[in-house]
Amino acid sequence: MALSPEAARAYELDRKHVFHSWSAQATLTPTVLTSAEGCYVTDGEGNRLLDFSSMLVNTNIGHQHPKVVAAIAEQAAKLCTVAPHFANEARSEAARLIAERTPGDLDTIFFTNGGADAIEHAVRMARLHTGRYKVLSRYRSYHGGTETAVNVTGDPRRWANDHGNTGTVHFFGPFLYRSEFHSVDEAQETERALAHLARTIELEGPSTIAAIVLESVPGTAGIMVPTPEYMQGVRELCDRHGIVFIADEVMAGFGRTGKWFAIEHFDVVPDLITFAKGVNSGYVPLGGVAISAEIAATFADRVYPGGLTYSGHPLATAAAVATINAMADEGIVENAADIGERVLGPGLRELASRHPSVGEVRGLGMFWALELVREQATKEPLAPYGGTSPAMGELVAACRAGGLLPFVNFNRLHAVPPCVLTESEAKEGLAILDQALTVADAYTS
Amino acid sequence: MALSPEAARAYELDRKHVFHSWSAQATLTPTVLTSAEGCYVTDGEGNRLLDFSSMLVNTNIGHQHPKVVAAIAEQAAKLCTVAPHFANEARSEAARLIAERTPGDLDTIFFTNGGADAIEHAVRMARLHTGRYKVLSRYRSYHGGTETAVNVTGDPRRWANDHGNTGTVHFFGPFLYRSEFHSVDEAQETERALAHLARTIELEGPSTIAAIVLESVPGTAGIMVPTPEYMQGVRELCDRHGIVFIADEVMAGFGRTGKWFAIEHFDVVPDLITFAKGVNSGYVPLGGVAISAEIAATFADRVYPGGLTYSGHPLATAAAVATINAMADEGIVENAADIGERVLGPGLRELASRHPSVGEVRGLGMFWALELVREQATKEPLAPYGGTSPAMGELVAACRAGGLLPFVNFNRLHAVPPCVLTESEAKEGLAILDQALTVADAYTS
Ligand SMILES: Cc1ncc(COP(=O)(O)O)c(C=O)c1O
Ligand SMILES: Cc1ncc(COP(=O)(O)O)c(C=O)c1O
Repeated sequence: MALSPEAARAYELDRKHVFHSWSAQATLTPTVLTSAEGCYVTDGEGNRLLDFSSMLVNTNIGHQHPKVVAAIAEQAAKLCTVAPHFANEARSEAARLIAERTPGDLDTIFFTNGGADAIEHAVRMARLHTGRYKVLSRYRSYHGGTETAVNVTGDPRRWANDHGNTGTVHFFGPFLYRSEFHSVDEAQETERALAHLARTIELEGPSTIAAIVLESVPGTAGIMVPTPEYMQGVRELCDRHGIVFIADEVMAGFGRTGKWFAIEHFDVVPDLITFAKGVNSGYVPLGGVAISAEIAATFADRVYPGGLTYSGHPLATAAAVATINAMADEGIVENAADIGERVLGPGLRELASRHPSVGEVRGLGMFWALELVREQATKEPLAPYGGTSPAMGELVAACRAGGLLPFVNFNRLHAVPPCVLTESEAKEGLAILDQALTVADAYTS
Repeated sequence: MALSPEAARAYELDRKHVFHSWSAQATLTPTVLTSAEGCYVTDGEGNRLLDFSSMLVNTNIGHQHPKVVAAIAEQAAKLCTVAPHFANEARSEAARLIAERTPGDLDTIFFTNGGADAIEHAVRMARLHTGRYKVLSRYRSYHGGTETAVNVTGDPRRWANDHGNTGTVHFFGPFLYRSEFHSVDEAQETERALAHLARTIELEGPSTIAAIVLESVPGTAGIMVPTPEYMQGVRELCDRHGIVFIADEVMAGFGRTGKWFAIEHFDVVPDLITFAKGVNSGYVPLGGVAISAEIAATFADRVYPGGLTYSGHPLATAAAVATINAMADEGIVENAADIGERVLGPGLRELASRHPSVGEVRGLGMFWALELVREQATKEPLAPYGGTSPAMGELVAACRAGGLLPFVNFNRLHAVPPCVLTESEAKEGLAILDQALTVADAYTS
């Protein structure tokens, strides 16, 4: 098929004028997307693809939800923008709806434009609240692209931005499949990973550490669901040493794991929660930080030294109001839990049982990773850490050819569809993956 | 007057759940804004105010421009969001329209969510392009709230975030009214400020300096319009030493100074231009970096290590397309130049001639600052650097009471209305300022 004239022009202008994230620009041949609905997107050649990526794991409510689209048009007609120092209906209501869902007393909301600046501000709050500078985070994590966020990040995207001067220290989190601690089961991995964190805190010096930043469930880095005991142990270490616990829910929040916030799985209340993506499914750029009463009180009489022009943007927060209300009214979070537990998870495990290239299946809700390997015994990844491989390239091409858009990182394929996925859509996706995985199987030994 | 029930609820929820930028939260009593049109906003009590702030100097096209509102609704109905690695019509067309207007060969556009992340990415590009780390910027400047941006900033908002480890060095720029160089006229100030910059480069070590970041016209810091010779001299120093020249046009760009980009006043082509605000008047969060061919080529075959989920967001870029087209069709940039030169500038100078509290009037286009002083001879500011004062508080209250929303920073009042300001609106604003300034006059000696 050929590109439509509009898509051809979009492609041509893109190649002439658009600079893309995380890429060598000359090597790109971006797919044009022209429309989308629910769990499907349509490309410039008219191909309809089942979106098992939710774009960058942000369209939790699916594409073009009519209530959110209508709310955007309505707010646009009413009042697109106000400066942050005013108050505004849409912003106030979004803050209320978010505060209603956050655990504990994280009832004060600072709005940003996305996930990276949410992390920037959360780290700043922690540093000023504690009077300490250092921030601990785990290897195998992603927290965003601005200076602090990318240095808190524990993936190769940090490397080119790491000049050793941002006060970030990385430790190993629990990851049984590739255990750093030579553990044989989850209980041991939890215990050893906690001991490792406690030791790291001890040796770095508790009095120097402002915050521990953790994705509640690490996303891009591999969807390694921690045990409740691990997260409770982190909470305890933070309490013991006066360290701020920042739970990054930019990817895991707002229904992705089958709960409003992933941290609810662990019965833990962090001090700060960063969010973005699912809060309004990315229909309008929005992120933010939910702040505990104690940390908010730090800035009651003392100026918080941070801000941005679009903090609490009316259009963005109106989209959040509509998104949260629609997700609640339509049981979308419950759907993510249900389809994940009943259809998608079991289906992926069944694929793993038949495909030698699938080393492990991990996840919950609409948040699943397939760890692809050359050999199950050695767990040798199908692409090197930080890179790709012909095998992974062919796997993605096979998914696309079959009509499915996957999310891929190194040697992993993530099945992260919108939270509105139906049972039949889940089965359609599983069938396409089944076919595509034969391509990866051919690379196993 | 009392707040409407909706406004009262917005206020109440704001005080309960919203954390505001750059503020001590307990001291806030934010005005509720409920609607806006053109150069006017309406507050929760139904007061109509002439917006001489353009919010945070972003609504260059005025509030609720019907063509931009319609374009947002239209794009929302079509396709709200796609991930950055795809191509998309709205993003491609926005990039084309911006590239068409940037000077020189700055024809490749990287989109961000706002101004701060535009600076973050521009600095990163400069560092990787040069292989150097240090960034020079001027005191009396503002570049954003994320870690790199706030440390490049030369205003007190940096202080609480400055740990001395971000590789930023500040120098003094030209500012005749409070000359660092004891100059007696603009020519001398230009010459001495350039010599100071040359000396700073020499002593910091040219081989260590990745970039010089300068607002083309410093905005929040005081609208000190540099001479063309100064900016040309900076260009020459950058060329001589292989330093990347980053022109920050987040506030000055897109019509604010009566040109599409303020740098056009100086006949200079920088290497990178950062933009946000005026690009779509902030109707949807958007910012970006316009990149020279040479710097873009650095990332042709080498991965650019930076990105964000909402880079080139369809709704945001569709708003930019509509904004730029409407500004072009309706001659809005020309209007800013015309009303500025013919009505607003002369009117402000006339006020200065009668009000002893006005020490200087500076600006161009829709970008004007009144420097308020206790005494013209000593130039003692009406509020201390980094602070406020009863005099400034009363001046703002008088403007509000008169029906005008000013932009205020320390001892300065900025007249920065939308670029669509009419002659009669300009005169209305001048009349309100005339009244309000009598309050400031009472504080002069
Ligand atoms: C866990 C997490 N934190 C932060 C971010 C950064 O968000 P953004 O791309 O909106 O800056 C991401 C983005 O993928 C993320 O997954
Ligand atoms: C010149 C300049 N650069 C950068 C910024 C930061 O932009 P944002 O607030 O969108 O992060 C501003 C904001 O006022 C600005 O005026």
